[in-house]
Amino acid sequence: MEPSIPLSPDNVKSLFDSVEAFLFDCDGVIWKGDKLIEGVPETLEMLRSKGKKIVFVTNNSRKSRKQYANKFLQLGLTVSGEEIFSSSFAAAMYLKINNFPPEKKVYVIGGEGILEELELAGFTGLGGPASHHLGRLGTSSENIRYGTLCIRENPGCLFIATNRDAVGHMTDLQEWPGAGCMVGAICGSTQKEPIVVGKPSTFMMDFLLKKFQINTSKMCMVGDRLDTDILFGQNAGCKTLLVLSGVTTLSVLQDPSNNIQPDYYTGKVADIFQFLRP
Amino acid sequence: MEPSIPLSPDNVKSLFDSVEAFLFDCDGVIWKGDKLIEGVPETLEMLRSKGKKIVFVTNNSRKSRKQYANKFLQLGLTVSGEEIFSSSFAAAMYLKINNFPPEKKVYVIGGEGILEELELAGFTGLGGPASHHLGRLGTSSENIRYGTLCIRENPGCLFIATNRDAVGHMTDLQEWPGAGCMVGAICGSTQKEPIVVGKPSTFMMDFLLKKFQINTSKMCMVGDRLDTDILFGQNAGCKTLLVLSGVTTLSVLQDPSNNIQPDYYTGKVADIFQFLRP
Repeated sequence: MEPSIPLSPDNVKSLFDSVEAFLFDCDGVIWKGDKLIEGVPETLEMLRSKGKKIVFVTNNSRKSRKQYANKFLQLGLTVSGEEIFSSSFAAAMYLKINNFPPEKKVYVIGGEGILEELELAGFTGLGGPASHHLGRLGTSSENIRYGTLCIRENPGCLFIATNRDAVGHMTDLQEWPGAGCMVGAICGSTQKEPIVVGKPSTFMMDFLLKKFQINTSKMCMVGDRLDTDILFGQNAGCKTLLVLSGVTTLSVLQDPSNNIQPDYYTGKVADIFQFLRP
Repeated sequence: MEPSIPLSPDNVKSLFDSVEAFLFDCDGVIWKGDKLIEGVPETLEMLRSKGKKIVFVTNNSRKSRKQYANKFLQLGLTVSGEEIFSSSFAAAMYLKINNFPPEKKVYVIGGEGILEELELAGFTGLGGPASHHLGRLGTSSENIRYGTLCIRENPGCLFIATNRDAVGHMTDLQEWPGAGCMVGAICGSTQKEPIVVGKPSTFMMDFLLKKFQINTSKMCMVGDRLDTDILFGQNAGCKTLLVLSGVTTLSVLQDPSNNIQPDYYTGKVADIFQFLRP
């Protein structure tokens, strides 16, 4: 495997010219917690002005696309719901394209955003966020018990995971168990494996391809996680750019035990803008 | 693989004569919830009167050996703490034989019994049972968060699971997520695999061998679960007897997809007593 090379003023032009659509992860790339990462607005503006397509691909399923569009707006970025591909949307689309009968019910262990996307797709969701004292895990033991029973007692019951991310970051300082924690709990009590619709699975790619009609070799996935973002880009045949503004450090990238190497890496998204300036 | 054969008046004598120690699982074998299973006292009495060693090997880690001895007593059976091998005891012994420094701390996601066994073995346990509203899962999202951080942020931190049982049964009617559920959650958020000290791992077998000085081929493991009890017996080279008084039905045993076949199967422990009567 070729080691990843740093993005630089010397190689940025060839990457830029070969790419027609940039796919961005959000957390750790566009924002961190509730703060926009430095230089993002100018970079997105520049990309758009040069005719590049932009799309946001997030594994975080707590929000619907509409809720994400609002978050962008609050941070001063104008993004349409159509430019956002969230794993909550992907979960609803998975049911849609597999002709899940709309009269059946979908039990949700997760956030409001999933319920909203299910409803938009014409499905009935049950469950959803648990009481607030449980915090980020967003689920109670009652939810797990019920979900376990649904899967164990109903042959053919679908078990769909929006993602299996191990941890999330609410702030720079705190690491929290991610959706992979509760997915692991359900696996442990059902002894079944889920269908994953978020990154690194390429399920969402079909929708992206339909939307843009651009070959994946002309797309560049920009993300901060090796095992989701970069793997997703590689699995789909995209170019890949790791930014170090999120969870992955340079020493993790360059550790001999790491076997996921993006094509390029750089500090933050705004470096694209910086390096391209004459 | 040879299919399992039913225990019968014709073959019970040869099994009985070849076995010097009977290892019994408890839940679904000796009792069900809070009720003794029919014929257990007479059977245990008969085994003892014929000079057979008896030991109870349970994966349920909520209780310490002392608490188990009390449960036996309440059900009218006299059993010493020494005859009980629980996975809570096994967890403490794992630390003991691996020279875990007693000045270090052990964070417990689980029941009171684990804390008690740790203390008896000279270790300091933290955590333990969460508030009661979380019920059987016996843990809160705070515990999971803290446990996740311990493992992720401390290189070399041990991750020990008393068992990975998928489900438990409080009553005949209800299935509950077992310890495998919370172990799965920790795996999902740490991306590490645990050291399992309960069945089907044979970790406890070293203690049994030291205690009895009997070759495992002269032991018979009697249990109601294929993937823990029977597999444990087989992994250790014991003879195995499945009883259908717990979680496993005859149709599950005989399903073509099942690849764990005990040597014998029968309805309940008391059949040994019945079949041996002249």
